[in-house]
Amino acid sequence: MNVVITGGQGFLGRRLAATLLRKGTLRGPGGTEEAIERITLVDSAAAAAAPDDPRVTSVAGDITVAAVLQRVVDRDTASIFHLAAVVSGMAEADFDLGLRVNLDATRLLLDVCRSSGAHPRLVFASSVAVYGGELPDTVLDSTALTPQSSYGTQKAIGELLIADCTRRGFVDGRILRLPTISVRPGTPNAAASSFASGIVREPLNGIEAVCPVDPATRVWLLSPATAIACLVAGHDLPAEALGRRPIVNLPGLAMTAGAMVAALERVAGAEVARRVRWERDPRIEAIVATWPGAWDTTRARALGFPCDESFDAVIRQYIDEQLAPEQRTPTR
Amino acid sequence: MNVVITGGQGFLGRRLAATLLRKGTLRGPGGTEEAIERITLVDSAAAAAAPDDPRVTSVAGDITVAAVLQRVVDRDTASIFHLAAVVSGMAEADFDLGLRVNLDATRLLLDVCRSSGAHPRLVFASSVAVYGGELPDTVLDSTALTPQSSYGTQKAIGELLIADCTRRGFVDGRILRLPTISVRPGTPNAAASSFASGIVREPLNGIEAVCPVDPATRVWLLSPATAIACLVAGHDLPAEALGRRPIVNLPGLAMTAGAMVAALERVAGAEVARRVRWERDPRIEAIVATWPGAWDTTRARALGFPCDESFDAVIRQYIDEQLAPEQRTPTR
Repeated sequence: MNVVITGGQGFLGRRLAATLLRKGTLRGPGGTEEAIERITLVDSAAAAAAPDDPRVTSVAGDITVAAVLQRVVDRDTASIFHLAAVVSGMAEADFDLGLRVNLDATRLLLDVCRSSGAHPRLVFASSVAVYGGELPDTVLDSTALTPQSSYGTQKAIGELLIADCTRRGFVDGRILRLPTISVRPGTPNAAASSFASGIVREPLNGIEAVCPVDPATRVWLLSPATAIACLVAGHDLPAEALGRRPIVNLPGLAMTAGAMVAALERVAGAEVARRVRWERDPRIEAIVATWPGAWDTTRARALGFPCDESFDAVIRQYIDEQLAPEQRTPTR
Repeated sequence: MNVVITGGQGFLGRRLAATLLRKGTLRGPGGTEEAIERITLVDSAAAAAAPDDPRVTSVAGDITVAAVLQRVVDRDTASIFHLAAVVSGMAEADFDLGLRVNLDATRLLLDVCRSSGAHPRLVFASSVAVYGGELPDTVLDSTALTPQSSYGTQKAIGELLIADCTRRGFVDGRILRLPTISVRPGTPNAAASSFASGIVREPLNGIEAVCPVDPATRVWLLSPATAIACLVAGHDLPAEALGRRPIVNLPGLAMTAGAMVAALERVAGAEVARRVRWERDPRIEAIVATWPGAWDTTRARALGFPCDESFDAVIRQYIDEQLAPEQRTPTR
């Protein structure tokens, strides 16, 4: 089977590709495991570190251009993971860019799927940011979307388009609402939620981090490893399991920024945790404060989606995967 | 003040224009009544019966074309009523046409408003069809949108775009979810809800009507006169009254198809009511059955939106407005 990953050179895209190459199979429409013959990574980034594997093709191109998507999606495309997006902070700063990538490219992808006749499985990475405004303490599947950011608005529109195209039979869509991913490796990005990785990652790497939100600010978190496991699980679900509701709120960990730093102190010691400086940024708080701190995960768990055990374990996951042995100096 | 009505040659558009011309004023941004100097009706229909009034300009053009909207919206545009749409049955039959008119034109209109710098009040006619799927018996403002038709999907996307552009200050949006309008004058249209007028209108005009849904099917209805009154009331509300929720579920009448015909019998007699033939059409039932039969109207009433008194009164409204005196033969 042939698999396409948009945003394939991004953090999740590369990690997903590596996981799929190692795994070697995905579930096909018949419900049986099928060998992955080709993975096409499409991304605006110049072909960076594409895995050295004969099954991988890397395409550098703008997914808002029909010809680029037509080149990567054809009638042999069995599965698409649509991860490409302009992140929240950037979509708020550049309204037109956000619309182009987060809305137009999603719509174009659906057009190309429809005209290819491939009827692929389409896994869409949606976001906690589709929620906003006055929310109940715990968000339910039946809670209305009132996003308070352009990113959240554009993701919510992508959800609606994919759900309608799934109902019409153009694609077999699976829309997964991802909590904020933490701990992301690498450097800060333009997402309003960037701090949710930075306040753990930077201190562990000996660097000071600024936390731009109040310690009591609630966040809803998912580790990179579990995020990838959820994308694969969402892909592999039979369509019947989702029924007329192709949207799933993925399980996360409900934390406050303060509790995250307390976990960091437990795992890596007080000296590391002291590298977090608290300095509120109203622009970031205005976006993050509108996201739900937790949502009901009954359905996701019933569907068999995995979840993280604790944020302490998530921090240890980051240390094991990303730090050189000499950097690993947990105090306990 | 200058007012633009998209879909200005449609049933609601023409009626709204006539009402505004008679009224002569609308509330301006400062909260005071301002004289309406110009009303521009834009519609794809060739300039049909434009009111003979020097304040009215009629523009025939495709609102999915930027130049057409740029011609009618400029920095002097104070208010826009965006009523143009491809109706539910047609949007289901022609997916691309629905997207073009219901989504692209709305987005283009927002673009033109933004670049005009006019910051107009924008009243958007949304629909009961944004709801669908598994719904509570009475839909609340906080109930999630899971539309089960392309029309409902496209209206929900329009809502999200307008809400985000309102939040960003490009327009002053007021999104009004209209119940199914009944009794519409004229001939059947391609809306799945067309029967909700036909089963009253045709019998009153001596013609047999087919009701394509089960008598127990619930519908949520609003009369033409009250719909227009709601559009004006929505326009005139101060933005502060809406806060961060520019979307209002308008008050309607909860009826079943069977109760509608019973009302027809009460108002116009058994002979008239017998002209309704019951013949279920699965294609129409599949769309209509997913719409809510009622929604909570607490907020709309608190905001001062008017509502119909009874469906009997709605039928009498139609008789008084649309039937020639010799046709008016109610039995009681």
